[in-house]
Amino acid sequence: MADTSTEELLPFLLQRNNVATYEDGFVVIGDRRKFPFEKTVVRCTDVESVAQAIENMVTQGGGIWIVAAYGMVMAARHGEGKSKNEAHGYLQKAYIRLVNTRPTNTALARIIAKAMAVGDKAIAEGVSVENALLTWTEQLLDDVYKDYALMGRLGADMIEDGDGILTVCFAEMSFLFALAMAKEDGKHIRAYVPETRPYLQGARLTAPSIHEINIPVQIIGDNMPAHLLAQGKVQKYFTAADLVTLDGHVVNKIGTFQNAISARYHGVPYFAFCREPDREVSDCVSVVIEERNPAEMKMCQGTATTISEIDAYYPAFDITPPHLVSRVITPRGLLNPYDLKRYFS
Amino acid sequence: MADTSTEELLPFLLQRNNVATYEDGFVVIGDRRKFPFEKTVVRCTDVESVAQAIENMVTQGGGIWIVAAYGMVMAARHGEGKSKNEAHGYLQKAYIRLVNTRPTNTALARIIAKAMAVGDKAIAEGVSVENALLTWTEQLLDDVYKDYALMGRLGADMIEDGDGILTVCFAEMSFLFALAMAKEDGKHIRAYVPETRPYLQGARLTAPSIHEINIPVQIIGDNMPAHLLAQGKVQKYFTAADLVTLDGHVVNKIGTFQNAISARYHGVPYFAFCREPDREVSDCVSVVIEERNPAEMKMCQGTATTISEIDAYYPAFDITPPHLVSRVITPRGLLNPYDLKRYFS
Repeated sequence: MADTSTEELLPFLLQRNNVATYEDGFVVIGDRRKFPFEKTVVRCTDVESVAQAIENMVTQGGGIWIVAAYGMVMAARHGEGKSKNEAHGYLQKAYIRLVNTRPTNTALARIIAKAMAVGDKAIAEGVSVENALLTWTEQLLDDVYKDYALMGRLGADMIEDGDGILTVCFAEMSFLFALAMAKEDGKHIRAYVPETRPYLQGARLTAPSIHEINIPVQIIGDNMPAHLLAQGKVQKYFTAADLVTLDGHVVNKIGTFQNAISARYHGVPYFAFCREPDREVSDCVSVVIEERNPAEMKMCQGTATTISEIDAYYPAFDITPPHLVSRVITPRGLLNPYDLKRYFS
Repeated sequence: MADTSTEELLPFLLQRNNVATYEDGFVVIGDRRKFPFEKTVVRCTDVESVAQAIENMVTQGGGIWIVAAYGMVMAARHGEGKSKNEAHGYLQKAYIRLVNTRPTNTALARIIAKAMAVGDKAIAEGVSVENALLTWTEQLLDDVYKDYALMGRLGADMIEDGDGILTVCFAEMSFLFALAMAKEDGKHIRAYVPETRPYLQGARLTAPSIHEINIPVQIIGDNMPAHLLAQGKVQKYFTAADLVTLDGHVVNKIGTFQNAISARYHGVPYFAFCREPDREVSDCVSVVIEERNPAEMKMCQGTATTISEIDAYYPAFDITPPHLVSRVITPRGLLNPYDLKRYFS
């Protein structure tokens, strides 16, 4: 487990047991679709339901790989007692299904490929594949939460007393650690959170999480960041990153890019949290931007925003070029995006 | 009446009789809150209900001054047969109530001040104030619709075959004229409409209106314009303007500004339709940005987007500086925003 005293800084949604747990053959996922109205979980009994939970936004962001890793543990359990070939087949089938849930998220693909290798090693050695994968996943979670806390510390040090902080979507652990630690350091800060249509992660997940750790927060429209920047309300812009390329492009929730343009226009620095860039993605040419069902763009909390015959378009991510990124906050320090390949290739 | 053959280019919402009418003592307003789900009207029996209809977004944009002018006609009717002082008092009271409905909209204040003068003149001359104000309002509407068609023509000439057009909120007559005329000219175009939270004017009013005149249109999130610009989907950005200052600042629906920054970043020109800048507003120092009830920012189509204890912030307009505005489209031509004071002071 991560250092408990550190993890306690995090709000409900981001504490490890509330993201997801593996319980004796079941993957139990904190349901972010119903938060903050309800605190419920989705209990998955097979890999297919884990994959659908990812696709249907039961979890998102950093929750995705955790849930998928537990999905691999579950696949291993289903293969226990079978032949080596069959056990490998269970893992292989789960791997393919899980990786295809979110095409932009290459961290997911990298981690599940590693899980696959861990599973195959256990099969070859004739030990419990379920145990091997569960141990590996929990160790990875320990390491990642330590990194989150470290990146949070680095982010907190960039925050000055009196700062207004802009973010986008739900930047999760590193960002919430940064805010909590800045507050612990005695800095008075305020956060502005775009609601993040269509799924309202900003309004539903980020703003209540910041409110929970007693930092003043206001929800704004996705159309408002530049106006707040012009008003002088914002001094720092922080986001997560679904993928950072080796040449410093930040791929993240749609809206990240236009806020980065507006931040630069107003001379406000933009920091992206990223545990590691993708060593296999040298530039943004090969990045696949997930285009989700346009019907989702015409709904809000289950209510239609227009009539059905009107078309829509829903790219879920955008790409911010390195010249708009002040620093990428990694466990190795605050890096110039143009320097990433020197540290990570 | 405006040239019928021209007005027929406009979709349902923007045809004069569907914006608002004055019917024998009643102001009847097309209800834009329920469009496109229902085509209904709100019937106002007194000035207070007209003012509340404006405040509650029954109409918006260019509909506001029309409804307010009819409100003045109604106030005149209530003063008929009374003393000159009393008749003036009815107008004065209506003037104050109506002007205070939307503080950013100085065109509203200018027009209702003119209506006040027209009414006072009729009172002094001892003629029917209701008739005088109704005649004046209908004449103004004739003139304004002619200007809309002229600005639409100028806008259409800026559009090239194959263009993707970005807009914001509901840019109404001039913009819809521009699209319709470009189509009449044989240009194949496509429109991208940010939904415009929190009231979804883009999704509910603009997109169905463009669809109605048979131009391909897609609703996007307010967080997506920069991504579409980066994809090369957008060649022109057009908006209305709630207020243009004499030194070329465009005050318009929140979101206009950040899209203008993103358009400039991508080398895409931005055109703002404006019948006339406000000769009394020399710069943006005195501009009042209406801040609406934050609770409105936490609702979408009547459904809560978060829990009630979370705070929000809802500035309804923003200010785009002249260096980001390629041209202001006025009835006098396409003007460099820095030249406005030479034409209008």
